[in-house]
Amino acid sequence: MNRNEIVAHIEETKSLLCVGLDTDLDKIPTHLLSNEDPIFAFNKAIIDATAAHCVAYKPNTAFYEAYGLEGWKSFEKTVSYIKENYPKHMVIADAKRGDIGNTAARYAKAFLDTLNCDAITVAPYMGKDSVQPFSGRKGKWVIVLGLTSNPGADDIQKLELSNGLAVSQSVMDSVASWIPNDELMFVVGATRPDELAKIRSRYPETFFLVPGVGAQGGSAAEVVEAGCVKGIYGLLINASRGVIYASSGDDFAEAAGRAAEKLKMEMAGAFA
Amino acid sequence: MNRNEIVAHIEETKSLLCVGLDTDLDKIPTHLLSNEDPIFAFNKAIIDATAAHCVAYKPNTAFYEAYGLEGWKSFEKTVSYIKENYPKHMVIADAKRGDIGNTAARYAKAFLDTLNCDAITVAPYMGKDSVQPFSGRKGKWVIVLGLTSNPGADDIQKLELSNGLAVSQSVMDSVASWIPNDELMFVVGATRPDELAKIRSRYPETFFLVPGVGAQGGSAAEVVEAGCVKGIYGLLINASRGVIYASSGDDFAEAAGRAAEKLKMEMAGAFA
Repeated sequence: MNRNEIVAHIEETKSLLCVGLDTDLDKIPTHLLSNEDPIFAFNKAIIDATAAHCVAYKPNTAFYEAYGLEGWKSFEKTVSYIKENYPKHMVIADAKRGDIGNTAARYAKAFLDTLNCDAITVAPYMGKDSVQPFSGRKGKWVIVLGLTSNPGADDIQKLELSNGLAVSQSVMDSVASWIPNDELMFVVGATRPDELAKIRSRYPETFFLVPGVGAQGGSAAEVVEAGCVKGIYGLLINASRGVIYASSGDDFAEAAGRAAEKLKMEMAGAFA
Repeated sequence: MNRNEIVAHIEETKSLLCVGLDTDLDKIPTHLLSNEDPIFAFNKAIIDATAAHCVAYKPNTAFYEAYGLEGWKSFEKTVSYIKENYPKHMVIADAKRGDIGNTAARYAKAFLDTLNCDAITVAPYMGKDSVQPFSGRKGKWVIVLGLTSNPGADDIQKLELSNGLAVSQSVMDSVASWIPNDELMFVVGATRPDELAKIRSRYPETFFLVPGVGAQGGSAAEVVEAGCVKGIYGLLINASRGVIYASSGDDFAEAAGRAAEKLKMEMAGAFA
């Protein structure tokens, strides 16, 4: 999925929303638990209900690995279901992997080839040879952690280097020199719109995956205001819990659809 | 597995060796490929041949995830086989995970509870709330990336902060304030013995998992010289390719056993 295709899909749906499929058996409606594969049953219903209001899905691998083999199977089925039924939607494996060269190449194979995801999130701490092996696949994206939305972002990412830059800025500068701009995105948290605006001015043409809207406290309208770029948009705004657990009753799917639509509306500024 | 048990096992085997099970179907002896589960068949033979010469095994999750469901199954079987047959050997899930709080808790559950590994490697870029959820399990260890053995370690870990510390030093100082010392280890690469010695003087009582011996160029004797601590040892020295691919013929297991024994001999300085 190349940049033009992503932009065209954004314009068609009038949405920058990415729905995070952080599916947790303790949180899904109990009537689904008798299903043969409750995780997939939940995801399928959520996907069908939200597809008209979003442009991407982001299953976080942690939630699937927590259930071992069965979880891994649900992950595979979820990716296949999206690819078959909603081929314009981007599938992002939120895996935050990072390892030395030959090992990173294995992760790239696992998520971008075997599972056929469109993108994978990558942690940069181990440097160039841990990030670069994810690049070089036509239409696939490497999404590298820049400044994240959690409180712990202060602990390392915001430390000041002797050259005056924050660690996260230096990381993003380096990463941008390793990976071509048409296959690179950065994770930039929504809980800090002023910082998002600064990072946008430093990278005017790079797509950002923005977590932290909703349950984590960020506002979609503020993110659009701070980070949207005329012509390319440059934003995928993620919401997970606020959408997929909008209701725990029989109406969970419809409620998720409404929550996704509401978030889409909050992004209207991008299309004004 | 607590620290006393690890130290007792080290004294019993006279070894600090950890064998990295980075099993790759393109590299294992071809006669194993007709096996129903070639990855597990290879691992089982390697484990049986090396157990007398090592104290830990470290399967890297990337190599298993690359084969999807089948690989995940082989990973589970490998961990179970070690736990059942060599219960004194530590099993380290080399997963290098790192994500926000509730998600990190899921990874902790996946690897330390569901799979029952003794330890997991963790990437620190997202800070305290991404690291701390792995701690607090009796007898389980959190192994956090400090200074890694790959060339990319220069890119971020070695940058100088405005307070004069390297990023990796600051990371380790912070992590040591978050996790109790009896459940914390650091990854410190073997390819830099002088730096290993410096880090040892900063953390005199912390266990280090040291990758980079063998295929990556580090020497086990130098690692012992630079990092071993009287009484607690404080080192698990990992070798992967140099041991498990010592031969690609029918004698692959014996050759791995000999390679492990040779590395153990190179660590004799720790027991002098």
